[in-house]
Amino acid sequence: MEYYSKHIAKLIDQLSLLPGIGTKTAARLAFHILDMPKEQVKTLSASIIDAKENVRYCKECGTLTDSELCPICSNSDRDHQTIMVVENTRDLAAYEKTGRFEGVYHVLHGAISPMLGIGPEDIRLKELIARISKDNIKEVIIATNSSLEGETTAMYISKLLKPAGVTVSRIASGVPVGGDLEYIDEVTLLRALEGRTIL
Amino acid sequence: MEYYSKHIAKLIDQLSLLPGIGTKTAARLAFHILDMPKEQVKTLSASIIDAKENVRYCKECGTLTDSELCPICSNSDRDHQTIMVVENTRDLAAYEKTGRFEGVYHVLHGAISPMLGIGPEDIRLKELIARISKDNIKEVIIATNSSLEGETTAMYISKLLKPAGVTVSRIASGVPVGGDLEYIDEVTLLRALEGRTIL
Repeated sequence: MEYYSKHIAKLIDQLSLLPGIGTKTAARLAFHILDMPKEQVKTLSASIIDAKENVRYCKECGTLTDSELCPICSNSDRDHQTIMVVENTRDLAAYEKTGRFEGVYHVLHGAISPMLGIGPEDIRLKELIARISKDNIKEVIIATNSSLEGETTAMYISKLLKPAGVTVSRIASGVPVGGDLEYIDEVTLLRALEGRTIL
Repeated sequence: MEYYSKHIAKLIDQLSLLPGIGTKTAARLAFHILDMPKEQVKTLSASIIDAKENVRYCKECGTLTDSELCPICSNSDRDHQTIMVVENTRDLAAYEKTGRFEGVYHVLHGAISPMLGIGPEDIRLKELIARISKDNIKEVIIATNSSLEGETTAMYISKLLKPAGVTVSRIASGVPVGGDLEYIDEVTLLRALEGRTIL
């Protein structure tokens, strides 16, 4: 990219390493950054370093947080006997946004995927078993994604925990609220049929 | 965003200030950054500051560059008597990528837009006139965008320069190469018809 200055080329290169950012988008972002006030550019640059340096894993649930114990795990108003198992911090945030789940979480940081060579030992399952034997857990709700990997992981966890006598549940899979049947794939339609409830 | 750590929330906030980056994309980028090796994060953060601090405008053509005079303006192999006028550095880069334009550029840093309150005095027109009276210019090729603003600017420049006796041309507007007529808007089709050449 000799037609760009060395510093601009480097910035475009760096930005295009981010997921979903191609060279054209990276160039657009880079020129926008060059147009921003210097203070704002400093804040952006610093927030990247700050996040990387200060964010760590909650020692209880494994989510990304600022402190040793995340705000959810350290909140005594939450139901610590109900654990929702999610694949990552973004999925945890998705359920937190609903504001209706009162339990705590367990973040796996991945899902079992034989295709990608990710086995049960590569996700935070040992930590989950440790939590279940330590606390008196009422229910483990598996909220992994409704993908092949998510389902495989759900099945694996269910088999792993049932012998311990703990109730294991799986979030429902079916037609999204507001979804038009016409546009929904067949697998989801069949799943919704299988999971029908008696009215 | 209390469900995210303070540092993650700040990073997401900062990233979502960038053009075309919504909150969801910003969250995806932020978590990707947290997953990157620390050295790589430092490089990304530094490249943002470095670009902002070291990039300046070429004193001749006004493009964003690292030095007082950009590599194109300081290249004596280029034809300094042919100036292509573009709206911004990205458009300059687009023509440089073709590798076939041997002249030099003039970057306006904008286009005349009565709607946005951008007048002739807000873009680098004074500098263009100064260059034309100083050097013995053969031709000024106007390569502003084919938008309302670009066309207005082209018209304005043409009226401004013609009295000085300099040849002013405009890049062609028409059907893009490889473009399927079926999918091309009517204005472009009419423009292509008007601009037809005799074979």
